[in-house]
Amino acid sequence: MVTTTSASRSSRTRTASSRPFAASRSSFPEVRVKQAKPLVIAMAGMGTVGSGVARLLEENAESIAKRAGRPVTLKTVVIRSPKERVGAAKDAEFTNDLLAPANDPEVDVVLELIGGTTAARELITKALENGKHVVTANKALLAEYGHELFPLARSKSCHLGFEASVAGGIPILQSIKETLAANELFSVMGILNGTANFILTQMSQDGMPFDKALALAQEKGYAEADPTLDIEGIDAAHKLVLLIQLAFGANYPLDKLRVWGISRVTPMDIAFARQMGYGIKLLGTARKVNGKVTAGVYPALVPAHYLLAKVEGSYNAVRLEGNAGPVMLYGYGAGDLPTASAVLADVIAVARGCEPNNLGFADMPFPPDADILDLDEAVSEHFLRFLVPDKPGVLRDIAGVLAAHDISIAQVIQKEKSEVTGSAVPLVLQTHDAPAREIHAAMREVEKLDITLDRTMHYRIL
Amino acid sequence: MVTTTSASRSSRTRTASSRPFAASRSSFPEVRVKQAKPLVIAMAGMGTVGSGVARLLEENAESIAKRAGRPVTLKTVVIRSPKERVGAAKDAEFTNDLLAPANDPEVDVVLELIGGTTAARELITKALENGKHVVTANKALLAEYGHELFPLARSKSCHLGFEASVAGGIPILQSIKETLAANELFSVMGILNGTANFILTQMSQDGMPFDKALALAQEKGYAEADPTLDIEGIDAAHKLVLLIQLAFGANYPLDKLRVWGISRVTPMDIAFARQMGYGIKLLGTARKVNGKVTAGVYPALVPAHYLLAKVEGSYNAVRLEGNAGPVMLYGYGAGDLPTASAVLADVIAVARGCEPNNLGFADMPFPPDADILDLDEAVSEHFLRFLVPDKPGVLRDIAGVLAAHDISIAQVIQKEKSEVTGSAVPLVLQTHDAPAREIHAAMREVEKLDITLDRTMHYRIL
Repeated sequence: MVTTTSASRSSRTRTASSRPFAASRSSFPEVRVKQAKPLVIAMAGMGTVGSGVARLLEENAESIAKRAGRPVTLKTVVIRSPKERVGAAKDAEFTNDLLAPANDPEVDVVLELIGGTTAARELITKALENGKHVVTANKALLAEYGHELFPLARSKSCHLGFEASVAGGIPILQSIKETLAANELFSVMGILNGTANFILTQMSQDGMPFDKALALAQEKGYAEADPTLDIEGIDAAHKLVLLIQLAFGANYPLDKLRVWGISRVTPMDIAFARQMGYGIKLLGTARKVNGKVTAGVYPALVPAHYLLAKVEGSYNAVRLEGNAGPVMLYGYGAGDLPTASAVLADVIAVARGCEPNNLGFADMPFPPDADILDLDEAVSEHFLRFLVPDKPGVLRDIAGVLAAHDISIAQVIQKEKSEVTGSAVPLVLQTHDAPAREIHAAMREVEKLDITLDRTMHYRIL
Repeated sequence: MVTTTSASRSSRTRTASSRPFAASRSSFPEVRVKQAKPLVIAMAGMGTVGSGVARLLEENAESIAKRAGRPVTLKTVVIRSPKERVGAAKDAEFTNDLLAPANDPEVDVVLELIGGTTAARELITKALENGKHVVTANKALLAEYGHELFPLARSKSCHLGFEASVAGGIPILQSIKETLAANELFSVMGILNGTANFILTQMSQDGMPFDKALALAQEKGYAEADPTLDIEGIDAAHKLVLLIQLAFGANYPLDKLRVWGISRVTPMDIAFARQMGYGIKLLGTARKVNGKVTAGVYPALVPAHYLLAKVEGSYNAVRLEGNAGPVMLYGYGAGDLPTASAVLADVIAVARGCEPNNLGFADMPFPPDADILDLDEAVSEHFLRFLVPDKPGVLRDIAGVLAAHDISIAQVIQKEKSEVTGSAVPLVLQTHDAPAREIHAAMREVEKLDITLDRTMHYRIL
């Protein structure tokens, strides 16, 4: 048993709860769910996810109690203006005291659903210090402060659950930590941001320009008024850092991760990619290459016959590959109920008395820093789209620069002038395997030749 | 704590192991993986899956120990002729004594990988009676004798892990029981047999007839010499029964499940289905309809834009839908390493000291029988393909029969005579929603009219 020196009610609750099946071996250890002591939770934040949690707790109360072995009770909700009580949490106490959940001895689990990295960090720290289990959907906080919060949770033998923080309702984190634990994973990649995928899907299906697709996403509620985190790949980067920690047991610091967004993707590039048998997706990818980890977030060309290329709209998908084969998990990466479902999965694990398995490795308070192979040193095929004047010698000049960088060309598409491009013509090249470093150097050199009429677009090919 | 009256070494091992993080709350509970007491396993059967288990235990020993918190040691292997020691289990003792793993006080977990329902049942029963945890990939045994084995496991507080028995390396069972536990699932469906999916994929891509595709599957090692279990849907039925237990907490007895195979599917039907925007897949489906459960295994028309329609070759996929949205999980449903990975996931859960969560419900020794809505009473769209003589009045007669059964027609395709069909012409009808009962009655009536030249084919449309 966990030896505890604290006599607080919350730790006694946990000690008792960690044996919901307590019984002699010979008797039949049936649990009377409705008579079992409820697990008491408190929630900070009542936005989209918080409202979803309250709703699922109410609508699915019976089945959650059956899965959990006891009822789950929402005691407290922290919101800014507690007078405006909202949503389904009708029996909860509302307060604007941020630390109330952390300081209440009756509370077993604190749900941090306020987002951001200031108040959220303060609340989680205090809750863990007081021996409370914590569940959060806050990828930004964990990607930035995980090195501080996970060891604290471990020192208190507390759950710090974050299933909801990556790919919402998709059961990806527990799968990596537990169901696929006998694999050595060497590749993790995914469509980790539904907003960006929705925008790219619109651009791809209707030839819509980026700005119009973004406006549509905002109109439909998929994108925030300030969409930067989603469209510039930052949200996906937060999630990728967490996936790398769980899959590889390595910390890839956020500030070392290479991140590109989709705001410069054009319908023209999507059309060319399609013609070559690819779709364009904003991917987060990480793989092990000779013991090093290479990772990044970027719009990539994905072969059209890959299942990943067929993930459309606001859906997410994560593909894992290990020495026991590939798997792909698909579903809603955001939204009230999918995310709430993941939050409550972590709550149910606490209710069931599971030992914390926050990062999926037994002897690791926090993963050591990864030995990093910068994404620009990693090798892949590339897609380059130049916009050039319609005159002789241009292809020769560009091909010459690429050859000087030892980049060999697999395919060239040069189109006639069109209404879209005016007097300029797009010139598209697909390369064989080359490090992106050489591609970037070649692009800079081509620019100096003063033969391109617009910024050159570069995409990695999966 | 579990009160134990047994003084056997195995139960002491388990009692100790269930607290791998034992430590005072204030100290840092780091576990020294290599110094922790190994978990001792014994394995019956050294076929495809058993060899895979031995290989992963060897190749991934270090990462498995890190995930599990301690090393996992394979002590004993039961095979028919222990002189022919095979595979990677080089330090194990080989024996032909079936019950040796169950009777060895040093063994913590027994892996049943021999298949069948006689010796396997005997071994699992004895192991559980002796307080050993059990892990199995044997869907046939659990679908038939789960009502006996799960309550026994529960009465002994033992794990009876079977992640490997459904969809191989896809992390589906733990996802249903735990990560999606806050959902009320109302639909489970999947491509649950890789052999059948490989055959249908070949028929679909190359217009290959069933027999030739089956022969190819056998040649490639995807199909057994006797392929009945795979192609007649029986294997998928076993898996579906287990999925229903976990997803709905209800037992759908195998003998009540409606099961159709793929041996009568023709390339002609696949071609017509494609023309109408569908692929043909062997599906296991179960859904809740007004509190009842309706389920079956059958070749179905799946809309071509569904991700499920794009699952090709020997891959499996399972789609779940609950009130928190749909998810789909995809990967290898069979094969040595994928299945072994799932077997070892259950072993690692034991090593980590998790409480058993065999069926995913706290107060349920075994799920009660489902309130069944027979598949033929459930409503769907249907696809009917008749082979009729090329003469006037045939469509009128068939349409008349359907109308008499209140079946309304959504689409008709009638083709010219072709080389394939000789003087007969195929007549394809897509219906609006109707219960299959009426479809079957109409088919019988049409047969009596003596206007069809071959058996009429009927597929449900998803």
